[in-house]
Order: sequence, then structure tokens, then C-alpha cells
Amino acid sequence: MFPKNTWYVACMPEELATGPLGRRICGEAIVFYRDASGTVQAVEDFCPHRGAPLSLGFVHDGQLVCGYHGLVMGADGKPAAMPGQRVQGFPCNKAYPVIERYGFVWLWPGDPAQADPAALHHLAWAESPDWAYGGGMYHIQCDYRLMIDNLMDLTHETYVHASSIGQKEIDEAPVRTRMEGEQVVTSRFMDNIMAPPFWRAALRGNGLADDVPVDRWQICRFSPPSHVLIEVGVAHAGHGGYEAAPEHKASSIVVDFITPETETSHWYFWGMARNFRPDDAELTASIRQGQGKIFAEDMEMLERQQRNLLEHPQRDLLKLNIDAGGVQSRRIIERLLASEGQAAAGAGA
Amino acid sequence: MFPKNTWYVACMPEELATGPLGRRICGEAIVFYRDASGTVQAVEDFCPHRGAPLSLGFVHDGQLVCGYHGLVMGADGKPAAMPGQRVQGFPCNKAYPVIERYGFVWLWPGDPAQADPAALHHLAWAESPDWAYGGGMYHIQCDYRLMIDNLMDLTHETYVHASSIGQKEIDEAPVRTRMEGEQVVTSRFMDNIMAPPFWRAALRGNGLADDVPVDRWQICRFSPPSHVLIEVGVAHAGHGGYEAAPEHKASSIVVDFITPETETSHWYFWGMARNFRPDDAELTASIRQGQGKIFAEDMEMLERQQRNLLEHPQRDLLKLNIDAGGVQSRRIIERLLASEGQAAAGAGA
Amino acid sequence: MFPKNTWYVACMPEELATGPLGRRICGEAIVFYRDASGTVQAVEDFCPHRGAPLSLGFVHDGQLVCGYHGLVMGADGKPAAMPGQRVQGFPCNKAYPVIERYGFVWLWPGDPAQADPAALHHLAWAESPDWAYGGGMYHIQCDYRLMIDNLMDLTHETYVHASSIGQKEIDEAPVRTRMEGEQVVTSRFMDNIMAPPFWRAALRGNGLADDVPVDRWQICRFSPPSHVLIEVGVAHAGHGGYEAAPEHKASSIVVDFITPETETSHWYFWGMARNFRPDDAELTASIRQGQGKIFAEDMEMLERQQRNLLEHPQRDLLKLNIDAGGVQSRRIIERLLASEGQAAAGAGA
Repeated sequence: MFPKNTWYVACMPEELATGPLGRRICGEAIVFYRDASGTVQAVEDFCPHRGAPLSLGFVHDGQLVCGYHGLVMGADGKPAAMPGQRVQGFPCNKAYPVIERYGFVWLWPGDPAQADPAALHHLAWAESPDWAYGGGMYHIQCDYRLMIDNLMDLTHETYVHASSIGQKEIDEAPVRTRMEGEQVVTSRFMDNIMAPPFWRAALRGNGLADDVPVDRWQICRFSPPSHVLIEVGVAHAGHGGYEAAPEHKASSIVVDFITPETETSHWYFWGMARNFRPDDAELTASIRQGQGKIFAEDMEMLERQQRNLLEHPQRDLLKLNIDAGGVQSRRIIERLLASEGQAAAGAGA
Repeated sequence: MFPKNTWYVACMPEELATGPLGRRICGEAIVFYRDASGTVQAVEDFCPHRGAPLSLGFVHDGQLVCGYHGLVMGADGKPAAMPGQRVQGFPCNKAYPVIERYGFVWLWPGDPAQADPAALHHLAWAESPDWAYGGGMYHIQCDYRLMIDNLMDLTHETYVHASSIGQKEIDEAPVRTRMEGEQVVTSRFMDNIMAPPFWRAALRGNGLADDVPVDRWQICRFSPPSHVLIEVGVAHAGHGGYEAAPEHKASSIVVDFITPETETSHWYFWGMARNFRPDDAELTASIRQGQGKIFAEDMEMLERQQRNLLEHPQRDLLKLNIDAGGVQSRRIIERLLASEGQAAAGAGA
Repeated sequence: MFPKNTWYVACMPEELATGPLGRRICGEAIVFYRDASGTVQAVEDFCPHRGAPLSLGFVHDGQLVCGYHGLVMGADGKPAAMPGQRVQGFPCNKAYPVIERYGFVWLWPGDPAQADPAALHHLAWAESPDWAYGGGMYHIQCDYRLMIDNLMDLTHETYVHASSIGQKEIDEAPVRTRMEGEQVVTSRFMDNIMAPPFWRAALRGNGLADDVPVDRWQICRFSPPSHVLIEVGVAHAGHGGYEAAPEHKASSIVVDFITPETETSHWYFWGMARNFRPDDAELTASIRQGQGKIFAEDMEMLERQQRNLLEHPQRDLLKLNIDAGGVQSRRIIERLLASEGQAAAGAGA
């Protein structure tokens, strides 16, 4: 179950560079392409003529053309032309509201009449020249809510990411979870510890000593439908931690946009936004590579967890204090589902 | 749904060169082999002893022997022998009528009592020394009727085969569809156009100029249960087109035998018969290679179309004038199904 | 259907050398590991916290730790610890009785209260310095009972293993099947024949001429739940055959432990125990390699047989005299199932 009257990240602009892109989102097969003005359009990936996927076609003069018999599909879902045919009476496709902003293409998979651009999650860092972003996308075979759970409980770093960002002190530090309107915030502060490898490299990359004690923080913020942005960082100990002046710390925002594909698979858009050395493309690439490796470590765990849950539908999972972030996030999702009139299912937990 | 009381191409003779061949046709698992006289025989691919596939066995002295415990299966489906056993009381397998003719092995998957060799489709070119044939086979994951639709509407060439046989003028030329008894004929004539790459090569191969205007034709002929033979060619413009004398044209017959495997897969036997330079084996090989590439281009489209249709069972497809060939062909198939007492389903369209 | 209140081979000790092992047995996903004392333990492969497979975790100080969030699972199935948590109220996992003996790890998948170490099948050769054992394991996609049938009717050697241990005389020799309490014994004696390649090599390996007539024997013994031990050998003809003195024969025991994974797949532990040159590791390796090749020949046949049976559920298989060993073995399994209160299904035959 996924809320549909909301904005999801559908793809990255570079995925549209060479032609139409077919992608299933919230169970619906959709084709994305750029029209003559460069605007991204999205319609059902189904040719009304003979059912071929329009994503196997091409874009000609900014119009989407079916690659089987040449039907030209309009961005509004109405067939616009076809060689030798009058298309006025042809059945129409669903057309989807799309916004391209913040370096992503966003889709509203639900009722187009309710699509509200103002409801798009605001990302200040994505519009600021003081920040740089690098990231990627993984296709993961599990319920998107298992990924939300994963990101809203970072104690897993100690185990899944032991060689990069994990450290024993995460487990030992208490976690606090609170609601902020429609957001869930889970935070953990670890004072006067030694930084793990990833953060030592970030300190060095920021011109700071990496062999002195630091204060470390993790502030995970869930926003509906399924965004998790995590403020993370370390500051040389005794300079105020999270509140320390820039010259004493290395910090950034872990960016996670989680888009359901089916009930048991999703598209995971991951990345990192940082406000130091934003013009250093080499640093961006290096962080991206490190982060890509770290997030790949989660994949096997999540996919095997999904299969285990499908095999044990009768088992209730635990909801510990460390799980509060995920539990609260799921409650918000269930409220959205209820408000859309969908049955709120607790599948996966 | 497939008519069963009819002849389908089951395999090519070379597929029987090294031993028994197991192949599913019209939903039935069948084993083919050559007996002592060289005649092709076909029985259910199931050993009555322990259920092993007989196609994993071998042929000894012209008899099919199960590779598990040595049961000898008769060509009539009656177990003929087994070491140390009396086989008179053993259950029998279904045996299938088979004809080897025209360079193919033909199977009658339905009621053997109704099998009529005279009902086999006649192929004059396959028996004439003036003609040469080259071809191959593809295993395609879609309803065999989607392949019939594909071949009875060649406007797809413009899109799917843009670099070889496609050209804009196909779309623009009107198509005519007519019935000839139990056959459906769809034809298109394009006068005074430039030939596309495949036909330029054929003109050259035939010793004709390739840079002058030509008249081009395509005459698709569906015969039940699922054969599509297409007369294709080009003639130097102004010499009578289809009726032009041999020295002015390059022409041939595209041969398509489409054998259902399951409801959503089929064996596609494709090839080309030509009546020029029939002894030129190098030309045969070169045409075969080109045609193999072209037909491979259809595969992804057809298989993705099939998946799209399975996901959208509620959507009606369009039946345009260009689809008339496929629509009429399906009607004939439905009549055959009805006459066999099978429910006529319109699956896939 | 598989009896559960019985001992099955679960794994070989070397499979536990580098960490926990996840393996499905009798439909249950189980994790195996060595505790601090070196004893093998087995519990459900499901973390009560969030459902991750415990087999993705690690062993720390002899305790099994979940690799997702660090829950420590006790060998008794009770969560023993978790960072920052009180685990007393956590739900428990099933813990399985395990015995390590005879070079194998044995599991009792049923009711732990009924687990009886004395019920473990006794293997005298596995405890004697006069014997050597070499073997391996295959994962096979068929009902474990098809493998029992296979091993209790060695006429298949003539066909499936024609180039190694098969020979025409197997087919021709009568087979006798008898019950010995809860065991089924099928035997065949072939006197004054030439040995097939595998046995010629064994004769040579034993310092005996390989080009003289031999007496050959095969004595297959099924013990519940699914063990098949086969006494096999050849003796120079005229020295008493099976009863011949050691200096006239080459003999050994083919060892087959067949552990159900699902209704249509199993783990096949195969090997050979021999009482000649037990310290010759090279010979052990060479026999193991030859046997591995031979048993691989059965795999395709069995897996294809399984698929054929699933497609033809209405067909009854034959129960010939040569099948008596398998038929009787299945009756014993059905009695065990009935005594466990499971419906006795004849699936697969």
C-alpha cells in the first residue's frame, strides 16, 4: 500500500538523456520523456493501438512516438496522430503530473486534479550555490517501508556498515524520537568519541585533524510520503557539536528518496548534500562512490528480510525504542492511506 | 487457445540429427525421433514407467529408449519392451501423426483419427529446383496470434525495422485486405519509390541497378492455422511492378510458420524462399543472416507487448484498417476453435 | 510430506568453518553455528526483532549475533542480549536438537521433546580406523522420494551411468527385495561378468587384476527417514563373491543421506566408505571425484522427471518388481507420517 496523492521522485534527469524511460511507480507502468520545450511529461506506458510499451518508442520533434506502428501520443494522454489514421476517437491514456525540480523528476501518481505543486517537499540545499549534491539510484526488492525503517534506525550502521560509518558508540547512545507536525525526527548524539573511517576522511577532506576526539550526531527526518533526510556530522570535541562553527566540523545531509515500484520492490534514490567545498567535483565523486558502497551493503539484508517476512506472515515484529522512528513514520503513511480511502495495511511489520 | 486438428511445423530436420528432440507444442510435451526407416515419429514425452522425459533417452536400432530404466517406447505409443519386464499391460502414450515434407516436420497435435495428409498446406516453391530456401527458428514469449498480427500488418516495418526494410512510404500507402476462402490476403503497393537497404542489396545481388526508382509490393497471405507467407519484392519502376518480367525485379517469399508452445509462447520458424540464383549457397546464407537480424528486432517488441497485455486485461485494443489482416486471421482461428468445440477466446486482443 | 521426528543430515562440518550457515530443511529455515564449546547449535533463521535472517549475522564469542541490529540469539532460541535493550520479554525462536557424529551434523526438525540421540542411525564404518570416507553434497530440485526410488532401483545404472558403473548385466540379473524390520533391502548378484570401468579402476587400486571375470553385487539398504546405504563390490570370480576374502575383492559402501528441503527439492549428501587403503588420501580424492561425476548424471534426469510429474498429476506410475525397493521405502515413510498425524500423501508416485 502506498499513498498516491503525493509527490515521489520518479527519476534523475540523466535517465531521460537518450530517449523515453519506462518505469513502474506505485504499481503503474509509466513512460517519461522530454517534450519540445524540454519539459518532462509522463503518460501510461501502453499504446492504445496494440498495447506495446510506448517506452520502446522514441521522441520525434518533442512528441512521443510508439515504436511499433507510429502512433503519436500526446502529453495529455490523448493520441495526437498516427500515419493514415484519424485518432480523434482513440481511447486515451492516463497522463501524470510531473515537476522537475531540485535535480530530480517528481511524479504525482494519484488523482491529477489534486496535484499541488506547492505540496512538493522543499529542499533549500538543492537551490543554494553553497551546497553540492552527488548520488545514485538502486532498485531494491523489498517493501519501501523496510527501507524507511532502515534509515530511521541507524543502530544498524554498527553491524551492516562496520567498516565505514558503523561504530560501537551508536548502539550505546540513547535515541530520541519526536513528531514535528507531519514529520518524524529521530536523533542521536555521541560526544567525545573517535570518528569512524568515513568521517575521518571527511574531516581530512575538510582540512581538519582526524585523530582527535569528536562529537558526532545523526538527525533523521522522515517526511511523507517516503523521504528520509539525515543530518550527519562530526565536530572536534568541545566546540559545540552540532552547533559548532563551520571551521570545527564536517557535516552533510544524507538524502534518501524512496519510491515504491510494487508492494515488494522500490527505487532507492540516495545521495549526499554537503556545504563544504561545493565546487570540488572530485570530492563529490569520491563521496558518491563511498556512499554507493555503503548503501549496497543494506541491499542484501533488506531483500533477505523481505523474503523472510513473506514466509512468516504470522510473526509480529518488535517495536523497540530504536524502532520508534520507523513505527511513527508508518503511522503517518497509514493516515495518508486512510485519508485516500485505501485500506491501511501493516504489511511488512 | 489453439486449433489442434491441423498441421503445425514442429521442427526442422536438422534438429533430429543427434537424437530425440523434446518440444512442447499446443501445450503438449512431445518427443520426436527418426525410426529405423528414417521416418519421423512423435509420442508423448513421458515414460509410463516413472515419468521421465523420453527425450532424455536415445534411439537404438530405430527405437526410442528411455534413458532412465530402458523402457522401449513404440512409435504407436505402446511400450514395446523393457529389460526383464512384460510390457503388454503397461499404459500407453499418445502418438501423434507426423509428416515430413517441404523441408519441415509437421505435427497434428489433435485427434489422430482426423489427421488428413491432404490438409497439409501446399508449398509449390519447396518442391521446385528453381527456388532456394534459407531460414531459422526463434522461441518467442508471446501468444502466437500476436506474431500473426505483426506479420499481417507490415506498417510496423517503418518503425521496428527502420534501418533495413522499413521506409516512410509503407505507412503512406493504402492497404487492402480481402478474404480468399479460408485465407486472408493483405496487400500494399508502393510505386516509384527508392528501395530501402535490404532491397538495394537484393537488386545488386540480382544484377540490377539499386539507385533508380522502384515499384515495391507486399502481399501477406494468412492460411490456417498460423502460416503467413508474404510475397515481397521490388521492380524497376515502369516495368509492371509485381507483374514485371524477372529481369526487372528482385522478389521472394517471406515464410513464417508460427507454432504455439503455450498460451503465451510460440516457436517461430522464419525464412525466405527466392527464385533467383537458387544455387548460390553464399547468397542464401547472407539473406538468412540479414533476415535473422530483422526478425530478432520484433522479439523484444512482441514479448513486451505480451507482458503489457497481461497486465491490462481490461483494455480493448484498436482494430484499425491496418489491423484488418490480423483481425480477419483471428476470426478464422476462432471459427476453427468453435468447430473443435473449444471456447473461442479473444485473448491478446 | 516428510517425517519430522527423526534425524536428518543437515550439513557437513566444513560448511560451518567460516560462520553461520542458513539452510532450509523440511520446509523450515534454520541457521547452524558453532558455540563457544565448539558444539553445533541450530535455531530458526529469523530475528525476532525485525525478521532478518540470522544466518546473515556472525558468531561472536560463541554467540550468534544478528547482522542487522545486533540482537544476540541464544542457542535455546531465547534472545540473550541486545545493545541498549532488555530482552526478557522478546519472543523466542524454535531451537532444534542437533548431534554432530560420524562426520556429519544431524538435525531433528520435529518436536524437540521427542528427540532421541539413541535413534540416530548407527554407522560402524564411520567410527573405525579401517575405513575411509569421501563425499560431497548436491542441491537437487526434486522430491526427496524420487532420489530414494533412484537409489533403490539400480537398473538405472545401465542407462544413466553407461560409461562408468552401468552394464547390461544389471538389467538382466533378477532383483530381490525384502524387509528387515524398518529397513528395506534390495539386492542383485551378477556372477562371472566383466567389471565396468569404475570397478576395473577399483580392482587396480586394490592391487588386483582388472581383466578377469568377476562376481559383482549391489545390496541397497533403505533406513528411515531417507538414508540409503549400498554395499557394492566385485570379487574375482569363483572366490565366493560377496563372501570372498578381502584379498580377492574390491568393495565399499555407497553412502546416501537425502534431506528434504521443500516438497520438490532436497539436499543430497553422497559419498563412499571403503575399507581398503583407508589412509590413501589421494585415492579418497580420486574416488570422490569419480563418484561426483556419476551422481551429477542423475541430477538432470531427476529434476526433469519431477517437472514431468508435476505436469501430469493424473498419471499413475508403474510399480514393477524393480521398483519394489522404492515402493516399500515409501510405505515406511507413509507409516512414519501417519504416526506423526500427517496426512500420508503419495505425491510423486
